[in-house]
Amino acid sequence: MSESTFNTLSTWVEVPKNSDFTIYNLPFGVFKNKRLSPRTGIAIGDKIVDLSILDQEGFFSDLFLPEGIFLNDSLNELISLGKVQTKKIRERVQDLLLADNEKLRDHSVRGKVMVNRKEAEMLLPVKIGDYTDFYSSMEHATNVGKMFRDPENALLPNWKHLPVGYHGRASSIIPSGVPVYRPKGQFKTPDMETPGFGPSKKMDFELELAFITGKPTKLGDSISTADAEDYIFGFTLFNDWSARDIQAWEYVPLGPFLGKSFASSMSPWVVTLEALEYFRVEGPVQEPQVLPYLSCEKAHSFDINLEVYIQPDGKKSSKVCQSNFKNMYWNVAQQLAHHTVNGCNINVGDLMASGTISGETPDSFGSMLELSWNGKNPIKLEPEVERTFLEDNDTVIMKGFAEKDGIRVGFGEVRSQLLPAK
Amino acid sequence: MSESTFNTLSTWVEVPKNSDFTIYNLPFGVFKNKRLSPRTGIAIGDKIVDLSILDQEGFFSDLFLPEGIFLNDSLNELISLGKVQTKKIRERVQDLLLADNEKLRDHSVRGKVMVNRKEAEMLLPVKIGDYTDFYSSMEHATNVGKMFRDPENALLPNWKHLPVGYHGRASSIIPSGVPVYRPKGQFKTPDMETPGFGPSKKMDFELELAFITGKPTKLGDSISTADAEDYIFGFTLFNDWSARDIQAWEYVPLGPFLGKSFASSMSPWVVTLEALEYFRVEGPVQEPQVLPYLSCEKAHSFDINLEVYIQPDGKKSSKVCQSNFKNMYWNVAQQLAHHTVNGCNINVGDLMASGTISGETPDSFGSMLELSWNGKNPIKLEPEVERTFLEDNDTVIMKGFAEKDGIRVGFGEVRSQLLPAK
Repeated sequence: MSESTFNTLSTWVEVPKNSDFTIYNLPFGVFKNKRLSPRTGIAIGDKIVDLSILDQEGFFSDLFLPEGIFLNDSLNELISLGKVQTKKIRERVQDLLLADNEKLRDHSVRGKVMVNRKEAEMLLPVKIGDYTDFYSSMEHATNVGKMFRDPENALLPNWKHLPVGYHGRASSIIPSGVPVYRPKGQFKTPDMETPGFGPSKKMDFELELAFITGKPTKLGDSISTADAEDYIFGFTLFNDWSARDIQAWEYVPLGPFLGKSFASSMSPWVVTLEALEYFRVEGPVQEPQVLPYLSCEKAHSFDINLEVYIQPDGKKSSKVCQSNFKNMYWNVAQQLAHHTVNGCNINVGDLMASGTISGETPDSFGSMLELSWNGKNPIKLEPEVERTFLEDNDTVIMKGFAEKDGIRVGFGEVRSQLLPAK
Repeated sequence: MSESTFNTLSTWVEVPKNSDFTIYNLPFGVFKNKRLSPRTGIAIGDKIVDLSILDQEGFFSDLFLPEGIFLNDSLNELISLGKVQTKKIRERVQDLLLADNEKLRDHSVRGKVMVNRKEAEMLLPVKIGDYTDFYSSMEHATNVGKMFRDPENALLPNWKHLPVGYHGRASSIIPSGVPVYRPKGQFKTPDMETPGFGPSKKMDFELELAFITGKPTKLGDSISTADAEDYIFGFTLFNDWSARDIQAWEYVPLGPFLGKSFASSMSPWVVTLEALEYFRVEGPVQEPQVLPYLSCEKAHSFDINLEVYIQPDGKKSSKVCQSNFKNMYWNVAQQLAHHTVNGCNINVGDLMASGTISGETPDSFGSMLELSWNGKNPIKLEPEVERTFLEDNDTVIMKGFAEKDGIRVGFGEVRSQLLPAK
C-alpha cells in the first residue's frame, strides 16, 4: 500500500467508527467457536474473515497454499510460508473486502466466511519458541534505576551501548481473557531479618509491545539492522505481569525469574509490519553513537498510542497510563541485530517484547511501580478508589492504536483479570 | 531394580570394561544413520537397541503403544506416555538383554535390532520447550562472587534461601558433536573508555548436568519437593558455553544474555532417574534452614563423577577438572519446587540445568573462569601447552559416570569443538 492509496480504500463491511480493525489493518489471529475448530482469521470491524472457508472456496487457488494451512491452532505454519506469501494472502483479503469488489460481497458463501467476533474465542496466535524481553525504554530504565539503585546514576553504564534484554518464560504466555493467579513466592523487605513466603503484595503490569519473528536463521548467523524487518512478521500488545517483591529479592545476580514467569498476557490479533508502515517515525537521537552493527540506515520506530486501564471488580475502568511506542530508545531492528550478533539462532514464532514502555511524563509510565513510585504515591481511580499495586480481581486492560490522517490501525486489547492466589 | 539384584544382572551383549552403557543403565536417545531415519534407541555397550524394530516385531505388543512411537525425531512423544509406560519399555529391553533370555538373543531379527553406535549419528534427544539454568553450586557461586563482587561477602544474601536461576535460550541447544562458533559481541574491560566489539576473548565452558521434565503441569499449579521426581524423566551432561567478556559487560541488571545464548551442548543419551537410583546420596546440610516449600523428606542428590577434558587441535586431550554432582547445594527436587511455586507451568521436554558444578578443591572447579581464576593462573595441559580461556579449534569433552560396587551407570560424553568466529 502506498501512502496515496490510504484515503481511498473503502469496504462493504460495516466498520464502526474508531474500530481498530479497519480495511488498512487486517491483522491475523486464530479463533474457534462452538461450531468451528481452531482456524486462521483476519479481523475487520466486528467480523472475522474465516480464511479456511475462503481457501476451500478457491479464493486463494492461484497462490498454491499447502492444504489445510488455515486450519491450524497457531499461525506458525502460515508465517513459515514467508512474507511474499503472507502479504499476498492479506492483500487478497483486502481486495475481496473493497466496496466495489463483488466476488465475496455477492457470493453465497459470504455468510459463512464472515464470523461475528463476539462469538469467537481467540487463541494464542503463535506457538512461541523462545521469548525474549528487552528493556528498551530509557524512561523506564531510568525510573527503575532511581528507585532501586542510584538516583544520580540511574542508567547503568551499558544501557546506552546495547539493548539490554533477557530470556523469559515462554510456557506461561497466555492470550487475552485468560485470568492470572496472584503468584506466591519469597520476598524480603528491608525490615525483615529472614525472607518470608506468601502471595505477592506488589502485583504489577508492564505495558509492552511484542514482535513475532517470521523467518528463521541458522546457528552462527547474524541479522543486520538493514535486514531485520524481513524477520519480523507482526506485533501484539503484551502485558508482562510482574511481582515486584518476589523480583526484588531474587533478581541479583542472574535477573528476573519467578517474579515474571507466572504469566504474561498477549493480545490475540497480530498486526503486520505492513499495516504499520504508514506510522513509521524516526526514533530518538542516540547519543553516544552506537557501534556499527547497531546503526540504522532508516527509521524503525512506529507512532503507536498505548493505554492502560484498571477495572476494579464490579466497578468502572479508569485509564492509568497513556504512552507511545515511539518513546522507545532502542528500535526493533537494533534489538534483532543485537540478539543475533553472537550467532544466536531464531525460529519462526519467537516472541521479542519491548520492555515496559514509559514516556517522560508521570502519566505515561508503563507500570504501577513507576506510576505509584513503588507505592509511595497512590493512583486515584475513582473518588474513593485508589491503588498502589494491583488488588485481587482487578482487571488490567491494555489498548494500542496508530492513527493519522483519519487512518486507524489498532491492536484491540489485552484484558486479563488478576485472581487471588491459589 | 532393588539393590540386591544389581550384582546378578548379566547380558548376552558384549559390554566393554568401563563402558558407561551397562545393563543397569539403558539410556534413551534418538539416532539415525545412512540407512535409517531418526528413531529411538537404547544404548548398551557399543550397540544401540533399535526400539522401532523391536516394536515392529511385536516385542512391546502387550504395552499397547501408539503406532510409530519410536519413529519420531525426538523423545517428547515417548516421554509423554508417562513414567509407568517408559519404565515398562526400559524394563522390557533390560529383560530381553539378559544373558539367559533367548527371545531376542536367538531371534533372526537380532542383527537388525542391534545397531553399531559408531555408525549412528546421535540427534538432540528432546525438542526443548523452555530451558532454565540454575546456579546451585555454592563453590561456583562463591568463586564468581569473590572474583567479580566482594571477596568478603562472596555469596549474595538470597543465595542460601532459594535456588537462584534464570531463563536461557532453548533454540541454540545443540547435541554433542556439533561445533560451536566463537561468538562476537560487545565487551568493555576496565582499561577501555568505550565498549569494543569483536570475537570474545574469554571463551569458557561450564560443566553442568541437566534434567528433562517428563510430565506437564497447568498454569497456576505448583510441584512439592515430595512429588518433584515424578516430573523428572532423566539427565544429560550439559556444556553451557560462556563468553565471559560479553557476559561481564551485558549482565547488569537483567542477567546473562548473549554471553550464553550462542550455544549450549548436551550429551545425546538421557539417563533415566531409575538408573541413577542406586547412586542416591544425601546432599550437603543446608544452613540456615530453608523455607517449608523447599524442605525435603528424602535425599535427592546423586553421586555422579564429572570430568572435563580439553583437546587442543591435533594434540592429546588433558583432564582439567574432576567434580561431582553431589557437590550441589540445591537439589533437583528443590529446583523444581521453587520453579513452580509461583504457578509457572512446565511442559514435557523442558530442560533444567544445574549451573556450573564446582567442588571445594581447585581441580574440581567447573569452568575456565574459576580454574584459571579469570586468566591469572594458566592451566597446564602439556609441558608446552597452557590455557587461561579456550582457544580456537580446542575441543571440550565432558564425561560423567556413577560407579559403586562394580556397578557403572554413565552418560557417555558431550564433545564439541570451538571454531573461529564466523
